[in-house]
Amino acid sequence: MTLTDPDRLLPAEPAQRAIARQLYDRVADLPIISPHGHCDPRWFAENTRFPDPAALFVVPDHYVFRMLVSQGVRLEELGVPRTDGGAVEADPRVIWRRFAEHYHLFRGTPSAMWLDHSFEHVFGLTERLTADTADAYYDHIDAKLGEAGFLPRALFERFNLEVLATTEGALDDLKWHKQIADSGWSGRVVTTYRPDAVVDPEFEGFAENLETFGALTGEDTTTWEGYLAAHRLRRQFFKAHGATASDHGHPTARTENLSQPEAAALYQKVRSGDCTAEEADAFRGQMLTEMARMSQDDGLTMQIHAGSRRNHSAQVFAGFGRDKGFDIPGRTDWVGALKPMLDVVGMDRDLCIILFTLDETVYGRELAPLAGAYPALKLGPPWWFFDSPEGIKRFRETTTETCGFYNTAGFNDDTRAFCSIPARHDVSRRSDCAYLAGLVATGRLRLEDAHEVAHDLTYRLAKDAYRL
Amino acid sequence: MTLTDPDRLLPAEPAQRAIARQLYDRVADLPIISPHGHCDPRWFAENTRFPDPAALFVVPDHYVFRMLVSQGVRLEELGVPRTDGGAVEADPRVIWRRFAEHYHLFRGTPSAMWLDHSFEHVFGLTERLTADTADAYYDHIDAKLGEAGFLPRALFERFNLEVLATTEGALDDLKWHKQIADSGWSGRVVTTYRPDAVVDPEFEGFAENLETFGALTGEDTTTWEGYLAAHRLRRQFFKAHGATASDHGHPTARTENLSQPEAAALYQKVRSGDCTAEEADAFRGQMLTEMARMSQDDGLTMQIHAGSRRNHSAQVFAGFGRDKGFDIPGRTDWVGALKPMLDVVGMDRDLCIILFTLDETVYGRELAPLAGAYPALKLGPPWWFFDSPEGIKRFRETTTETCGFYNTAGFNDDTRAFCSIPARHDVSRRSDCAYLAGLVATGRLRLEDAHEVAHDLTYRLAKDAYRL
Amino acid sequence: MTLTDPDRLLPAEPAQRAIARQLYDRVADLPIISPHGHCDPRWFAENTRFPDPAALFVVPDHYVFRMLVSQGVRLEELGVPRTDGGAVEADPRVIWRRFAEHYHLFRGTPSAMWLDHSFEHVFGLTERLTADTADAYYDHIDAKLGEAGFLPRALFERFNLEVLATTEGALDDLKWHKQIADSGWSGRVVTTYRPDAVVDPEFEGFAENLETFGALTGEDTTTWEGYLAAHRLRRQFFKAHGATASDHGHPTARTENLSQPEAAALYQKVRSGDCTAEEADAFRGQMLTEMARMSQDDGLTMQIHAGSRRNHSAQVFAGFGRDKGFDIPGRTDWVGALKPMLDVVGMDRDLCIILFTLDETVYGRELAPLAGAYPALKLGPPWWFFDSPEGIKRFRETTTETCGFYNTAGFNDDTRAFCSIPARHDVSRRSDCAYLAGLVATGRLRLEDAHEVAHDLTYRLAKDAYRL
Repeated sequence: MTLTDPDRLLPAEPAQRAIARQLYDRVADLPIISPHGHCDPRWFAENTRFPDPAALFVVPDHYVFRMLVSQGVRLEELGVPRTDGGAVEADPRVIWRRFAEHYHLFRGTPSAMWLDHSFEHVFGLTERLTADTADAYYDHIDAKLGEAGFLPRALFERFNLEVLATTEGALDDLKWHKQIADSGWSGRVVTTYRPDAVVDPEFEGFAENLETFGALTGEDTTTWEGYLAAHRLRRQFFKAHGATASDHGHPTARTENLSQPEAAALYQKVRSGDCTAEEADAFRGQMLTEMARMSQDDGLTMQIHAGSRRNHSAQVFAGFGRDKGFDIPGRTDWVGALKPMLDVVGMDRDLCIILFTLDETVYGRELAPLAGAYPALKLGPPWWFFDSPEGIKRFRETTTETCGFYNTAGFNDDTRAFCSIPARHDVSRRSDCAYLAGLVATGRLRLEDAHEVAHDLTYRLAKDAYRL
Repeated sequence: MTLTDPDRLLPAEPAQRAIARQLYDRVADLPIISPHGHCDPRWFAENTRFPDPAALFVVPDHYVFRMLVSQGVRLEELGVPRTDGGAVEADPRVIWRRFAEHYHLFRGTPSAMWLDHSFEHVFGLTERLTADTADAYYDHIDAKLGEAGFLPRALFERFNLEVLATTEGALDDLKWHKQIADSGWSGRVVTTYRPDAVVDPEFEGFAENLETFGALTGEDTTTWEGYLAAHRLRRQFFKAHGATASDHGHPTARTENLSQPEAAALYQKVRSGDCTAEEADAFRGQMLTEMARMSQDDGLTMQIHAGSRRNHSAQVFAGFGRDKGFDIPGRTDWVGALKPMLDVVGMDRDLCIILFTLDETVYGRELAPLAGAYPALKLGPPWWFFDSPEGIKRFRETTTETCGFYNTAGFNDDTRAFCSIPARHDVSRRSDCAYLAGLVATGRLRLEDAHEVAHDLTYRLAKDAYRL
Repeated sequence: MTLTDPDRLLPAEPAQRAIARQLYDRVADLPIISPHGHCDPRWFAENTRFPDPAALFVVPDHYVFRMLVSQGVRLEELGVPRTDGGAVEADPRVIWRRFAEHYHLFRGTPSAMWLDHSFEHVFGLTERLTADTADAYYDHIDAKLGEAGFLPRALFERFNLEVLATTEGALDDLKWHKQIADSGWSGRVVTTYRPDAVVDPEFEGFAENLETFGALTGEDTTTWEGYLAAHRLRRQFFKAHGATASDHGHPTARTENLSQPEAAALYQKVRSGDCTAEEADAFRGQMLTEMARMSQDDGLTMQIHAGSRRNHSAQVFAGFGRDKGFDIPGRTDWVGALKPMLDVVGMDRDLCIILFTLDETVYGRELAPLAGAYPALKLGPPWWFFDSPEGIKRFRETTTETCGFYNTAGFNDDTRAFCSIPARHDVSRRSDCAYLAGLVATGRLRLEDAHEVAHDLTYRLAKDAYRL
């Protein structure tokens, strides 16, 4: 008995399945390139055991707890910490049981696939998770977590991770990355420059963040020039800790190309805190263009993740803070929004800007035509809600015909759920092979070319796009 | 010879077809739950014969006559009444022949599938409808309609309807529902509270409707408090006639959360008729939040049907009035629009708000993320133009991965075409089983789970969501 | 060895493939109706040889060169002329080699399919194009182009073109069409009235264009009445050169229905050059309604191609001008935008307006409901980025259920790449047959009806819609 079907996600039709299987077999065991995600570098710096099954699989994973919340479980009952420090469920076994009782809610979702894959392939479980098996699961996983083979570095190696990128804020001291580097461990864990806290005027504590930014860099961040110089220095610091990319999470894809005096004046406005929402948005937009210019100089690949309306529920945000499963995508314009930045840097053949969208309607209409023309642009893989078999299928079906495979940037797992990394890359490899098999079976791609493309999508394109 | 293929809508690939067939066989004969629709309760109150084939299949069905109009037939030629009482075709046989001559226009549409299903499974016809068979069809159906087995109550029972919800305006006296209840007949026909005529300031006769509303309830509808009290009483009256739900058909999904003094002031504006389009829209938005609050008190499930631009053709509206096939969907924002209401009631685990969209692009981007987080929300099935095999397929493919099956609300036929009810539910059951079979065949769902889900989608989820 | 799979684009599943093959075999060799495109009539007037392989396949085809540009090749390196007359690659063999070296970029794109089809079926090549075969390809094609059988008229006949429509601006003298007609050659090449240069106030040289327009027609184009009269005369002139249609390429689908005095006043504004972007847009919108009225009089079919944001890159536009692969689609509203025009002409059963969109999200939500109601409307085939197997599939899947097949207008190749015409029509025929086979295999369409529909989609609907 197994939890996962060895032929999962390959086409059901036998001839296509045979092709897909052949393609998949050649890429299934390639090393994992994980160029963007949210794992905690401390795991690999300290290499101590993960605390318990609930802390590993439930409490930090908004994919998991929001689904239970949608069906009437309260966040408190799942041990999610309250911002006021109020009491929440503290017993991990109770949390685990609640999770197990509701496990049927995940039927048909990628979460079920990732979890089952982790249960089976990481922990060796083969019975289904149900209310009845909840305790046995808990005990089994908890015991395993105490074994040397389940410490973070051991798992990293077992997962065949060639490189793992984490994401840190501009003010981070990167001490865990330093500790990893100093430790002599062979695993490659690199950071990524994510400056939202000093770029977004609406970020909590923006004014103080700018002061800290100045203090950290020795630049005078009360001036526009000093502020830009601080970014440049910080980017060097991140590069020194392995960064090959920056990352920018914005509510929209807006970019601006203000003159430097205009930009300086806008900076003074947003720095003072006395700016409108429109001015804050314009500032974020200007900073994307500035970051692109800096990338031209220092070679960092630039990632734009746009379109999430964060903290949709006022009640959940007040009670539990950010990243609690209530970030909802919205319609996102890209074609107009990116023009100011692209008029500055879009034709630069040495620059790499990777675009991630939560609005799938733009794939065929906007993103593929843009990436199929501008040399500086690449399309990131399906993100967040769309990092799934159907999401990947729609991505390929709506982009390939316009921009081909070679304007895409391979796969990102973008996860904070460490154990799901092999599962997510496996879903991506299988889904891409299924898509390629369909092209082969309908005379749209030669099998030998499909083998090469499968390898590129799995391995080479991510390495190239992120210069890893 | 038959009109319908016994394997219709099941996957063509043999292995998947076998799975789908197995799933379908277990749900094909379950009772029909019809929790939302537009059948006339008078049919079941009076239980007299349907007049003739044209009156049953053509004249009242905007799906049917708009298609003929699109190819050059005039509404008058199909017997659709003019608002000025001007002459229209009065001979039902002539109307029927016109319909039959144009029947090829429906190739590939769900209308053809529903009609053929009714012809074969309700009336026992097995030859195709063409110009040549038009008269034979007419005579056959007309004769059947005179038989006892084809009276409305007999058909209701033969269709295996466990419950049928109709939809009545807030000013309706519900006399037909009373007559049904008093008759001792065992069929369950319930009403639904649809207050558009007293909620939408742009509805024809809004001011007089408010007066009638006051007279009916004994409340002073010249005040905001009296107006709300009138709604509360009317909802009780509808509940006494079986209602378990309200229904709200709005051009947009906009909601508002005004303070009560602001809402009262806005009410006086719209009541006076001296309000802008923007104010009318804001008022409708405020009333969704008020209705949600009332649902928290009285337990009615709340349905929001948003996004139809009604009466698109000025000429058709002037000549023939509402509901003449010229209602065209428009782009609909949900994520911003629902926030005010959701900040009030969204986290209520005892409330059930069901969302229906005519903008399919929001399924994956907005509705599934919302329903996969807020406990008060459920997704209604594909509606109107999308109540079809491809529409259902897209619905499942774009929602399941994010919100699963259990944040959806089963199937609605939403029809005024009584004879199409079994056909529509059958299309839904087959389409869902086809989708589930695809998940099973690609290792994404276990067969035993798929059986349980198929039963839930067919029967349990609708009963639960509507508390039927 | 062949470049193209004889079963390409037919469904992979054997039973469906057999049905599709049967459908396709009956339509594969039907004459080509090409009712809209951008071939140069001079080719058929002069009937001289095409210059060389690069000039035939690379330099004029923005599908081809933008893909190479997106991966770092410069337009200059591909021989695309600079607007300043600056030096660009002049050796066609060098251009061809660059193209060949990058040919893998087209994997999975329709360009690859069109090109391989042309290489094999027009030029008899059977080895793959690679860097290694580049010179052999060049020599082979270049030699063929010198043969009598590869002159434009010979290819026209070999391609089995029953009629080819070209597109000329309102100020064109149509001398090549006259020369074709006078030559006694039996090939039917008709023009199309495309008045953008005298309708769009933002077109380069608009004011001078209006003067030329007056001079050409003898009408006083300084007045609104004279301007409209000039259009009427010009349309007659185009009709005399075979035109059965007009074509309108607008950034949005906006229409207006101003009173004639308002329109006259707006005309004076735009004529003076002293108008806002909003007024320019309103004028274009008014002109769509005026053109529709003229179509009611003179019977020209009207095409609206809306939604391209032209010349997205300022740098490319400055360096190379229009049509250089940097036209990016944008979100397009149709349902609100068309209402003013449809309130004037929408119910006219003798008028034919064909709609083309670059925003696929509107197919199911807006265009199919509109075309499934208004007698004057038809849906054009997928356009530009979406004239592809997946694009055609999405088009059929999102429109058929609402407006059927008979509110669509057959296929357009819309190309300036002459040799791709048979390939494009073949992709369309195969894709439609694949779609129909799916309907047949799932019991949604009878095989005999599918044969009739396949013929209609291939041949009859285009002839009817364009009155050819």
